[in-house]
Amino acid sequence: MKVKEIMDKEFVVVSGDQTVEEVSIIMENRKRLVTPVVDENKRLIGWITSLDVTKGLREGNNKVSQIMHFKDDIVHVHENDPARLAVLEASRHKVVSIPVLNDDDVVLGVIRTFDIVETLSKLYEIKVYKIFEAMEQELKGITWDELMEASAIVTRRTTGERITPEEYEQRIKDSTFGEAIWATGGLEKFFVGLIAIGELVIARKVARARE
Amino acid sequence: MKVKEIMDKEFVVVSGDQTVEEVSIIMENRKRLVTPVVDENKRLIGWITSLDVTKGLREGNNKVSQIMHFKDDIVHVHENDPARLAVLEASRHKVVSIPVLNDDDVVLGVIRTFDIVETLSKLYEIKVYKIFEAMEQELKGITWDELMEASAIVTRRTTGERITPEEYEQRIKDSTFGEAIWATGGLEKFFVGLIAIGELVIARKVARARE
Repeated sequence: MKVKEIMDKEFVVVSGDQTVEEVSIIMENRKRLVTPVVDENKRLIGWITSLDVTKGLREGNNKVSQIMHFKDDIVHVHENDPARLAVLEASRHKVVSIPVLNDDDVVLGVIRTFDIVETLSKLYEIKVYKIFEAMEQELKGITWDELMEASAIVTRRTTGERITPEEYEQRIKDSTFGEAIWATGGLEKFFVGLIAIGELVIARKVARARE
Repeated sequence: MKVKEIMDKEFVVVSGDQTVEEVSIIMENRKRLVTPVVDENKRLIGWITSLDVTKGLREGNNKVSQIMHFKDDIVHVHENDPARLAVLEASRHKVVSIPVLNDDDVVLGVIRTFDIVETLSKLYEIKVYKIFEAMEQELKGITWDELMEASAIVTRRTTGERITPEEYEQRIKDSTFGEAIWATGGLEKFFVGLIAIGELVIARKVARARE
């Protein structure tokens, strides 16, 4: 996934010679806490936050160019950068949004942290059930019931918890991947549990084939 | 993981009878785009953003109580809510931060979207290599070389790509879970690939045992 796929294209831009007051009204109406400052060709030249604006209003600065941060001092990404990079930059620099540029430094969009949160959290919200369905399809000759039975056995073996295959099925219908990795203590452990289940159903399948 | 484990405890609060100008200086100095408004017992009564402040400064409002949003109109979470809830709320309401309250409505912290991004992205940054190491430990009697060989075979079978076990090993050393799920086309597909590798090494182990 690339930066351009998760950026906000409904962004607001302002120019360096607009007044601070003008720009404060635009940012309030469009509910933007930060906005890129561009030249006449829409190229990024700077960046202002609403905190620069409050300071500008209080201190009587007239022009955006007097209060803005210059391009070289701000985090920006390229439209074809991996989305991962924007995620890392937002987290590293603790910013609420990042301008997205093309090869000519023209602003094409803005990455907002809550858009990143939405993208990342979709991963977490996948139901564990879906992963088991994919597993059932991959493991030819294994039924859903066999998978649930093996899961209940592995759960009991690893956690000591007595759980029926039916209860296990209900649990994975109710829980998300995010909950599961928090519950099992991390991604590797969650995956090891799946492998253990896979190993058990395969061993049983092999044993059946021999009989 | 609970909300209280990822909240920012270095938050700033203001009171309803502080002046807008005073508060604008506090928010600028502490670099806070939003801040909770509390009563004398630190209980949440409202919320202001720096956009409320720019409007207040421009329109000559004097007190925070004149420009704030009231508690009932803003998103807030409880300290013991699952962190997942804060993630969903931030994404659903498109906010940059959320106040965290205890049972008495006292503000204990603030969840900031970039802190959520940091937490979520840590999951993505786990090396794929680590998952294979966990798999090797779980699958008793399977060597690392057998695992790499099976991985190269499964990759060729599913994607047509000719890759040596050594190249596969290098790839998983270089790539993260985040890159892998984007590359394979989603979480389920990534897991199915791992399950297929597990199935192959187990089948080979069984065949060896029979000989």
